[in-house]
Amino acid sequence: MKVQKFSFSDAKLIKSPGQDADIYVGNLVDERDGGPVTIGYGRYAPGQSLTETMAVDDTMIILHGRLSVSTSDGTVTAGPGDIIYMPKGQSVTITTEGEGATTAFVTYPHWAEAHKG
Amino acid sequence: MKVQKFSFSDAKLIKSPGQDADIYVGNLVDERDGGPVTIGYGRYAPGQSLTETMAVDDTMIILHGRLSVSTSDGTVTAGPGDIIYMPKGQSVTITTEGEGATTAFVTYPHWAEAHKG
Repeated sequence: MKVQKFSFSDAKLIKSPGQDADIYVGNLVDERDGGPVTIGYGRYAPGQSLTETMAVDDTMIILHGRLSVSTSDGTVTAGPGDIIYMPKGQSVTITTEGEGATTAFVTYPHWAEAHKG
Repeated sequence: MKVQKFSFSDAKLIKSPGQDADIYVGNLVDERDGGPVTIGYGRYAPGQSLTETMAVDDTMIILHGRLSVSTSDGTVTAGPGDIIYMPKGQSVTITTEGEGATTAFVTYPHWAEAHKG
């Protein structure tokens, strides 16, 4: 693969699989590209909640807005420029309030393949 | 590992190893934590240039400012919210002009171990 640059407008957003919240993800690099990681953008509408057990290691960088991640250990809240690291195996609830949020994410390995398994 | 949230001020910035430019990196998650990825922040002063062959897959998210990455195929320039993906094996020259840049990055596998090898 070659060096690539992406902007938010390059992402084709789809509803995050397996749930009904207004949460959308768009992969820019994934298993079809032959590398080890999936890279993409996410968009969370205000007032959403998504609970899942992490099938992959997922690093989110918050670009706009604000979101919270709750686990059995507590809740962290992040805004623009902050990073949230969600290791494989953790059970998380991701929530937004009035603002919603936009994120960039990197998963290892590829989340779509892990979800299928 | 548990879910963790980081802000830029959490990073202990050190000069990027093996070069003399005013480019600093600070790992927040790395090989000492037992996961597959290294996560951190980077800070590039204005007017810097760094050439290297990628030892790992490196995803940079530009938080502030602007930077360019040149390869034998051409040059991409990125600003706030943009992502640059630099796959393992690529030879890249990263440059900043008048603004400098701040980035978040995720590498697979751990860059510090790959640099040692």
